[in-house]
Amino acid sequence: MLNDSTICAIATPPGTGAISIIRISGKDTYRICSRIIKFRSKKKKLVSLRPYTVHFASVVHEGRMIDEVLVSLFKAPHSYTGEDVIEISCHGAQYIQQEIIRILIDVGARPAKPGEFTLRAYLNGKLDLSQAEAVADLISSTSAAAHRVALNQMRGGFSGEIAKLRTQLLDFISLIELELDFSEEDVEFADRKKLMQLVKNIQELIKNLVESFNLGNVLRNGVPVAITGKTNVGKSTLLNTLLHEEKAIVSEIAGTTRDIIEDVINIEGFSLRLIDTAGLRKASGKIESLGIEKTFQKIDQAYIVLYMIDAMYGPAEIDRLASKIKKRIKGKDKKLIIILNKTDKLSDSQLSKLKDLSQFKNIDTSDELIFLSAQTHENIDLLIKTMLDIVRSRIPGEHDVIVTNARHYEALRNAESAVDRVVKGLRSNLSSDLLAQDISEVLHRLGEVTGEVTTDEILGNIFSKFCIGK
Amino acid sequence: MLNDSTICAIATPPGTGAISIIRISGKDTYRICSRIIKFRSKKKKLVSLRPYTVHFASVVHEGRMIDEVLVSLFKAPHSYTGEDVIEISCHGAQYIQQEIIRILIDVGARPAKPGEFTLRAYLNGKLDLSQAEAVADLISSTSAAAHRVALNQMRGGFSGEIAKLRTQLLDFISLIELELDFSEEDVEFADRKKLMQLVKNIQELIKNLVESFNLGNVLRNGVPVAITGKTNVGKSTLLNTLLHEEKAIVSEIAGTTRDIIEDVINIEGFSLRLIDTAGLRKASGKIESLGIEKTFQKIDQAYIVLYMIDAMYGPAEIDRLASKIKKRIKGKDKKLIIILNKTDKLSDSQLSKLKDLSQFKNIDTSDELIFLSAQTHENIDLLIKTMLDIVRSRIPGEHDVIVTNARHYEALRNAESAVDRVVKGLRSNLSSDLLAQDISEVLHRLGEVTGEVTTDEILGNIFSKFCIGK
Repeated sequence: MLNDSTICAIATPPGTGAISIIRISGKDTYRICSRIIKFRSKKKKLVSLRPYTVHFASVVHEGRMIDEVLVSLFKAPHSYTGEDVIEISCHGAQYIQQEIIRILIDVGARPAKPGEFTLRAYLNGKLDLSQAEAVADLISSTSAAAHRVALNQMRGGFSGEIAKLRTQLLDFISLIELELDFSEEDVEFADRKKLMQLVKNIQELIKNLVESFNLGNVLRNGVPVAITGKTNVGKSTLLNTLLHEEKAIVSEIAGTTRDIIEDVINIEGFSLRLIDTAGLRKASGKIESLGIEKTFQKIDQAYIVLYMIDAMYGPAEIDRLASKIKKRIKGKDKKLIIILNKTDKLSDSQLSKLKDLSQFKNIDTSDELIFLSAQTHENIDLLIKTMLDIVRSRIPGEHDVIVTNARHYEALRNAESAVDRVVKGLRSNLSSDLLAQDISEVLHRLGEVTGEVTTDEILGNIFSKFCIGK
Repeated sequence: MLNDSTICAIATPPGTGAISIIRISGKDTYRICSRIIKFRSKKKKLVSLRPYTVHFASVVHEGRMIDEVLVSLFKAPHSYTGEDVIEISCHGAQYIQQEIIRILIDVGARPAKPGEFTLRAYLNGKLDLSQAEAVADLISSTSAAAHRVALNQMRGGFSGEIAKLRTQLLDFISLIELELDFSEEDVEFADRKKLMQLVKNIQELIKNLVESFNLGNVLRNGVPVAITGKTNVGKSTLLNTLLHEEKAIVSEIAGTTRDIIEDVINIEGFSLRLIDTAGLRKASGKIESLGIEKTFQKIDQAYIVLYMIDAMYGPAEIDRLASKIKKRIKGKDKKLIIILNKTDKLSDSQLSKLKDLSQFKNIDTSDELIFLSAQTHENIDLLIKTMLDIVRSRIPGEHDVIVTNARHYEALRNAESAVDRVVKGLRSNLSSDLLAQDISEVLHRLGEVTGEVTTDEILGNIFSKFCIGK
């Protein structure tokens, strides 16, 4: 996939701004750029300038000046791509950006494909595949949590650990293959006890990584929060109140399937994805017919379930509904917050009477229970704090490893099965040749994560999702 | 207006991309940045690095890593603003961009106001005011012609010429003021003949600049083209055909007044602004009532007038309509193209008969006349070529001076009146004190253009129209 051509692209966000960066990479970068980059002093030549320096220059083509620019010079292998790289910092007019690209193509560069700079960095050994993938995640991260996960991964993350264990496993497999050459003699070059220890380490690492995937997804895409409860209990009001919460940045994601709308709010570095159904907000008349089924769908997708009950209902009904929702949630990896809404409709004495939990069979102090008024915003802060506490309790430390990528997850799941077979094989004194096969499978799967084992198709798939210029 | 604070802003277009640039400028730039920019080697210190070099680094705040970045270092006075400047090239996630700005503010920078970097460049003498204004024009330029005008102006353009004449005039005024000191003695220190020559040079320059304003505006905003003609003659079809012309980039400008929609097409570096009325395309029934008046409005705004006549009308009616439109255009700085449309409806012999111009009293070979079918696209290429030829014939050479800025235009118009008074005064041997007054006025007005004479209010006005980060 690595070819000899020199590529160019606009690397800054699309549109008009004060400045934009055009990035050029490849072995002909200096030769190509020297045809259009001119300095005030005729003696100054691009090729003879020191790398890692910045210079004021003009872009001139066929006698026509395009812009006054700054050029930053990088030399292989110490550049982002590992190749010769020049970055042209021009005025951020779209006309100028496009014109410089057009001219670069005129003098021998070709437009970069999406992610091609990072692909070259990977192919030149500057990044492994999982780090390269983290670059795309980093660029699209919209919350502190997603940003941290991507940054960790880009800086090495779990791939260093995987690479280390993989190298050790490679040593073993060569010993086992040696055994095969001497199979008549029934020798053991590979210490089975040490091998078992290594494989168990790998098993442990993979298990942790596989388990981190759900959390990784949640951090990357936002924690799914379902707002549930019977009709007219105030779900829409609560949703709107949360969306208009002063500090929140609101965005709307069109659902990929069905008519579900998700609003994402960012609070204190975490994204909360409020799962709603279009029907719920737009045509409340439809709700009854959609009924329970929709609510259940929402609960299945959520990590935090907000279950709203009308505070006016009276203790018996409240108790009954609480019991029902708790049964529904039971045994699932979900957190329930019961909300008694419309406290503004209660008198002070009614409210303090309601707060006596001894009257309920199915609610106690171990439950997250919030007395709230979506209407008057009473205790909205408490609700947000409670949700953030739940999210934070699940957040790993700064350097913990988290898998966020579905491709990694799949490879790790496959590696997990293979490792399990190796463990079983070792326990049952499986023959060296069969053992070698299972170990190969583990190596292969782990190699898929870091890109030591890959195909052009996989690479094409991964990098086509990048933006151009990266 | 120049103050001591160190400013920071995102300088690249808003949004997500591969990379973004954060720019920091001011005397504390290095001190502020060294608090958050960390290098792999602990020994490496930002303040001791050579300027005009690029370094790989991390942005770290309160122990938390934000991103891996490149930093480019610039030192006063050799930087864009004339101050110490650092540019941080980070991953183009909006989260990261905003986070770095937040952190920079945390450690002592303040967010830059729109155009504040360029304002500082002006206040530090890196650019004069008309050059600074050209930076904004350059960034918003959308065609080759507009780009060239802005780039010329940014690189000095007419301001160097103005500054030179202004200096010479300053010499004269000091001599004239010396005469005032000796007014009892009736001496002449300032050579009136030389002064007259200088003032005439200034008069000539100003006249050319003032005259260039219309053209400048046209180049900047696109050449206004009116598509006119009677109902059902094919105006909408022609408009749509031009808009769908393969090479054209189409954009729609909402009219500032009335219900006029303008579509801009860019062809071969020039913008053609097709003036249309919303009513014309949307509710053709309304046209009759709006009638002639609308057509006249469109003609008044246009530089090129396309007048469409139905080729089926017969020679007498065609001749009558041609006569009418030519009368209407006469004496105005407009170019008329008469279009005989619907040639697809004519047989070959009918068409060749129609092409015999001797049958018309009011059309001859000096007219731009095109036989066209908007429907079948016959001769659309010729129409476009004809329009481009008209535009090109008006385009000045690479280094001609063109005024595009309304503020400059106004100052130059005022300078022009004052210069005329000076010429008159010199001719009528006006007394030195009155002459000095008129010369002062010229100096003042010319100084307004280049910013040697200015007020905070004027500056505030100019730079508030810039984008942030420039």
